[in-house]
Amino acid sequence: MTELKNDRFLRALMRQPVDRTPVWMMRQAGRYLPEYRATRAKAGDFLSLCKNTELACEVTLQPLERYPLDAAILFSDILTIPDALGLGLYFETGEGPKFRHTIRSEADVAALPKMNAEVDLDYVMNAVSTIRRALNGRVPLIGFSGSPWTLATYMVEGGSSKDFREAKKLMYGQPEVMHRLLDHLADSVIDYLNGQIKAGAQAVQIFDTWGGVLSSWAYEEFSLAYMNKIVAGLIREHDGRRVPVILFTKNGGQWLESMADSGADALGLDWTTDIGNARARVGDRVALQGNMDPAMLYAPPARIRQEVADILRRYGTGSGHIFNLGHGITPDVDPANAGAFIEAVVELSSEYHR
Amino acid sequence: MTELKNDRFLRALMRQPVDRTPVWMMRQAGRYLPEYRATRAKAGDFLSLCKNTELACEVTLQPLERYPLDAAILFSDILTIPDALGLGLYFETGEGPKFRHTIRSEADVAALPKMNAEVDLDYVMNAVSTIRRALNGRVPLIGFSGSPWTLATYMVEGGSSKDFREAKKLMYGQPEVMHRLLDHLADSVIDYLNGQIKAGAQAVQIFDTWGGVLSSWAYEEFSLAYMNKIVAGLIREHDGRRVPVILFTKNGGQWLESMADSGADALGLDWTTDIGNARARVGDRVALQGNMDPAMLYAPPARIRQEVADILRRYGTGSGHIFNLGHGITPDVDPANAGAFIEAVVELSSEYHR
Repeated sequence: MTELKNDRFLRALMRQPVDRTPVWMMRQAGRYLPEYRATRAKAGDFLSLCKNTELACEVTLQPLERYPLDAAILFSDILTIPDALGLGLYFETGEGPKFRHTIRSEADVAALPKMNAEVDLDYVMNAVSTIRRALNGRVPLIGFSGSPWTLATYMVEGGSSKDFREAKKLMYGQPEVMHRLLDHLADSVIDYLNGQIKAGAQAVQIFDTWGGVLSSWAYEEFSLAYMNKIVAGLIREHDGRRVPVILFTKNGGQWLESMADSGADALGLDWTTDIGNARARVGDRVALQGNMDPAMLYAPPARIRQEVADILRRYGTGSGHIFNLGHGITPDVDPANAGAFIEAVVELSSEYHR
Repeated sequence: MTELKNDRFLRALMRQPVDRTPVWMMRQAGRYLPEYRATRAKAGDFLSLCKNTELACEVTLQPLERYPLDAAILFSDILTIPDALGLGLYFETGEGPKFRHTIRSEADVAALPKMNAEVDLDYVMNAVSTIRRALNGRVPLIGFSGSPWTLATYMVEGGSSKDFREAKKLMYGQPEVMHRLLDHLADSVIDYLNGQIKAGAQAVQIFDTWGGVLSSWAYEEFSLAYMNKIVAGLIREHDGRRVPVILFTKNGGQWLESMADSGADALGLDWTTDIGNARARVGDRVALQGNMDPAMLYAPPARIRQEVADILRRYGTGSGHIFNLGHGITPDVDPANAGAFIEAVVELSSEYHR
């Protein structure tokens, strides 16, 4: 493997000294970039783009050409696993993801096949290895997966949901069936992320987009417990280097102490949590990634810069902070504003690392 | 005024001893009840029902006929204030509330009229006094309003929103304009709630449905600061009795300490917060209202009962707990399950009040 030229992101995840705070953006390869929209038009729809190795590689690299980012993230979807388990993922314009089949009973769960990611999701593995080669050591490549609870909500609901009533009906009414589903998904995620690590991912992030809709106790029992299982099952060292794991639960700010006990190297924070307060709560157990409100990118560049300065000040001195947005960048952001954000992190953060 | 026969709710709000934990449900007069749907059909649409004094009174009392509830809540909408300020509220089937006019500039804010609730929202005042008379001292009547930030999001967006981008554009890009709007709304809410108190409301709740989409600092500056102003401006004693104030910020579990400093008597909790943990954090400064997941009402009655027992146990002994759902009851809940919930509170809570 080529030597890594910029390991700022990996070092910060392990709370090792860095020259400045590393930065990347969730959904950095996305619709706000005209070059992304052009590539996507060539591919056809979103899923075809995910499944086309060359084009998925192309869009992954696009933001790195524009901005001094410290990491690349695999271009893919969080719902590849349920699709590979036979649920039939498709996208309706303006409606978000949908599944042709749903999981609502013990029999549905029992019928789910055991996943073999290297075969069933070979297009993801190909994308990872292709991107890793194309990066040529420029920055590390992040692999990712949805969390078991988050995947389960889509599988039970058949798509997105406002109140998750079907998923919660199953969870409250037949908890043992939900546990069996989540356990199956945890095993699938372990297989999937280990496949990505073997194919070249140098860090992995688990996206728990919907853990925050749960009660405290239900979060521990139905979401965090399965992320703990995943962290314990992952390859943590590959090619002589530690493979850090990042847990991100949107609206999970109340549960950071428990999340820090997961064995993950870092926690992702959405923008609702004060990052200084979060650091005080988790101490030196984990690094923190985040957490500017993505809607701040609609503000003038000078205001964006001020917000970056505030977040850097709140985190304070020393390593262990990876700058990011608190959620994905939105499609109608001006790319110049994203540039102002990244530039501000690059220019303002070195004073916190002397 | 008739003597109050059941003051359990008011006593618990003031953390005075009670024989059992009082209980009511947000949106307890609502579509899950067939008798509500029948009355609404007579009124026509939702707004006509709110504006029809007799029918609004009728639906307010309906849940009290079915269940041993300890409070009634005025049947109305949270968006009556912007409607009275001239924005033109209407409802499109399945789409939620909309406004004909939006507020996006300094000129828009400057043009807002000063509200005189007793004239501009006389239909609400009439409903309050009519319901109060009809209750005849059976249980206390709760008045309510949306919070300034929550009202502002609808006024700027022109309706509901997924990401609040227009409201946030204004807040981040022209904070002084947003502050002027929020200040105008805080004055309007004070006038509105004091009008309700004079008309007969015996406690008031401020619904901050969207405070939880803000960063910590922005919540303090753009939402909580204006709720503090409201609490300071309210009539706190009427007819020789304290009028307790409840603050409810959905997804506000991270900020309970600051909310407890508002001067409010009680905080509403959504279901994501552990109520035992919340009690430890706020100490004896405020009572706590909540907080079962409304989706638990889809589970079998035995499971609902277990959840009620768990929440009672987590809160622990002594007064200061008003049982409620963590958000409004949803339209397709079986009324028998709502009954099982209320019955469980009535039957299981007295052991915590010996």
